[in-house]
Parts: sequence; structure tokens; C-alpha cells
Amino acid sequence: MAESEDVKVLGAWPSPFVMRVRIALNLKKVDYEFIAETMHPKSELLLKSNPVYKKIPVLFHKGNPICESLIIVQYIDETWTSVHPILPADPYDRAIARFWAAYIDDKEYNMANTDEERAAVAEQIFAGAKLLEEAFQTCGKGGKWFGGDAVGYVDIVLGSCLGWIRVTEKMSGLKILDGDKFPQLAAWADRVCAEEAVKSVMPEIDKMLEFGATMMARLKAASSAK
Amino acid sequence: MAESEDVKVLGAWPSPFVMRVRIALNLKKVDYEFIAETMHPKSELLLKSNPVYKKIPVLFHKGNPICESLIIVQYIDETWTSVHPILPADPYDRAIARFWAAYIDDKEYNMANTDEERAAVAEQIFAGAKLLEEAFQTCGKGGKWFGGDAVGYVDIVLGSCLGWIRVTEKMSGLKILDGDKFPQLAAWADRVCAEEAVKSVMPEIDKMLEFGATMMARLKAASSAK
Repeated sequence: MAESEDVKVLGAWPSPFVMRVRIALNLKKVDYEFIAETMHPKSELLLKSNPVYKKIPVLFHKGNPICESLIIVQYIDETWTSVHPILPADPYDRAIARFWAAYIDDKEYNMANTDEERAAVAEQIFAGAKLLEEAFQTCGKGGKWFGGDAVGYVDIVLGSCLGWIRVTEKMSGLKILDGDKFPQLAAWADRVCAEEAVKSVMPEIDKMLEFGATMMARLKAASSAK
Repeated sequence: MAESEDVKVLGAWPSPFVMRVRIALNLKKVDYEFIAETMHPKSELLLKSNPVYKKIPVLFHKGNPICESLIIVQYIDETWTSVHPILPADPYDRAIARFWAAYIDDKEYNMANTDEERAAVAEQIFAGAKLLEEAFQTCGKGGKWFGGDAVGYVDIVLGSCLGWIRVTEKMSGLKILDGDKFPQLAAWADRVCAEEAVKSVMPEIDKMLEFGATMMARLKAASSAK
């Protein structure tokens, strides 16, 4: 690690939003302390440092708290400027990267209980993947990454979701990153997961599956208790 | 106007999101052509230039379309750098400005039909205004604006909503920008509306009231036809 500063990340290992911050810091080769947020109940530190949303991640730099993963990743890029640029230099390319990052962040899929609901969610997921397959070309301009020749903003934002996409594939039997349907996206996903900055913070799929199963059981119990 | 470039804004006069883009261009003294989007049906230009969301505003610069108002304002700031900086220079201040801009953008209030619903919405609005009254201090550091000594990112994002906030006040009888409850916010709102860059694109309240009444009538008709 090239730099050593007063950097802390308040987060939890399963969160893709937290993972974004850790990947960005890894790319910048910035040392940081990881503080595990237990969430039940939320820590005093979380409530104090993100009083508006009370959500992880929170980045602390020299004691200042910064919230919201997309904002934190931009902060990291603008603070440690000499190593691995994350956003493109050109304003138009930056706007396009921000557009797709916000698009990925806005996606929410409802829980599906019936075959009909499952089919509807699958259709939405495939429509989103198709757009991202096309965006890969626009953003990456023929490079290996959304960021072109190097892992960039959209690679971090979407890459952080890959663990949960794979867990969803295993739990639902739905092949999302299908090399036949989305060849560029599928190949990109393998490349992202092999990157050191990502690999070192991406949890093992089995551990995520177990966490996912526990969460699903908890949600079902809560919904049947209503 | 100091600069003349190939700049067009696709929008509609009542939209606060469109207004943000126009205020930012005014502050930068950039000449632009305004293209009125009629929305019913959506124009070919809109569908082609924002195929993902099909929403206004779209900024065209040298033929390139840029979508999403918060992204467009950042693009404007990063493209015309020599006149009136919109985002702060310091990365931490930028993160704080982005946080509040995103907070304002995320706010959605449900239509209230009963007294109970109206009270609940009013409570949410006042809670939001209280946070923004506090944020004015944090962002503005004692200056006249969220941007400190000059109109900045948060001033544009919140300022663009002032017309509709005032319409809401008139239509509901609820005093939102209450000088007793939120003295800084109320004084700031008057200052924003008196700024040339804002005043020249802020529609008259009567015109907005008329538009608001038509919209409400259309929504009620649609909901009673269900």
C-alpha cells in the first residue's frame, strides 16, 4: 500500500454498496481500517455519522464522514488523484459513466412468489442486462472494461453486485450472466471477479448463499406473521 | 452571453429538472436554444436521445445528448470551467453538496386525500425542511448560499423546486418556507428567486397555479375512472 492516511470504512461484508468503497480504495492503494457494522441494533457510530439515512457504507477520512456509495467513490477519486483514475477525464465520458452508475443503483426488483411474478422479474432483469451489454460498448469504447482500458466507475458499481447476481442465479435457477445472450457482459463479469482489487473483498459464494438463505427465511417469516 | 456553442436544451417550462439545466447554463453565461418538448406524445427527439428513461431534460452539446438533471449540471460545470464554479473545489465539500442534491432529488411526497394523510405529508415536508435548514449552515459555511459566497450546486437543485413549493403552499394552505420555523431557508428562497439566472427561467406563479390545477384535475379524473 502506497499511502497511509486516517481512512476508515464502516460497513458489513455482504453489502455491495460497501464493496464499492473497498474496491475503490484498493484501486487507489489506500490503506484503511474496516469497522464491521452489526446493524441490529445500528451502532452509535452509524447513527451519528449518517443521521439522514442511517445506512452503510460510511467512509471516514481524517475524521470526516462521507455517505452514499456513489458519492464516496467519487470522493475517493477526487482525493487520491495520482493513482488509477476511476472516472474518465472527459466531461462527456464522465456524464455517461455517471448515467449508467445511477441506472444500476436505481434498479430494484420485487420479490417474486408466483411463476407469473418470477417471469415478470426475469423479463425486467434481461431488459436491464441488454441495456448494460450495449452500454459496455458505449462506455468502454472497445476496451476490456466499462472504464475502457482500466477498471472504472461503472465497473466498480456493477462489479460490486456480481456476488449477489450469482447468488440470485443459484437460488432461482435463472441464468442472468448468460454468455449466449450477453457475451460481453458475461466475459466482463469473469474478468472483474479475477481482478485483485475486487477478489480481495468479494465474499465466497457459499458464504453469501448461506446469508441469502437466512435472509429469505427471515423475510418469509416476517411476511407470514403479518 | 460570453460563449456561443452548439448547445440545446430539450425541456418543458413547468419542469424543475429542466430549470436546473437552464439556471446552470445562465450562470455559466452559455447561450442555448430551448426546444419545447410537448410530451403527449413524446417527441422522436426525446425517445431517441433518452431511450432509457424517455424523460426531460436532455442537454445537447455538439450533438451529444446528456440526460438526468443532476448529471447535466455537473457536466455543465466540468465543461465550462472558467466561469462561475458550481460545485465546490474541495472534494469533501463536493461530497457534501452531492449528498444534499441527491437528498432533494430523492424526495417524493404522496398525494394526500384525507386530513390524516395531509398531516402525515406535512410532517414529512417539515422534517425535510428542518434538515435543509441545518444543511444550509454546513454547506454554506455562513455564506448567503448553500454554495457559500455564490449560487452553487445545492442552490440550483433546491432553487429549481421553489416555484412548485410556492404553488403547493398556495394550493394546500400549508406554509412550508415559514420564516419563523426555517428563517435561513425562507430568506435564502427569497434571495434565490431574485437572482437573475433564476428569475429569467422561473415561471410566474399564476401560470404554474393554473398548470397545477389542470394537472390535479387530470389526476383526479384518472383515479376516479379506475
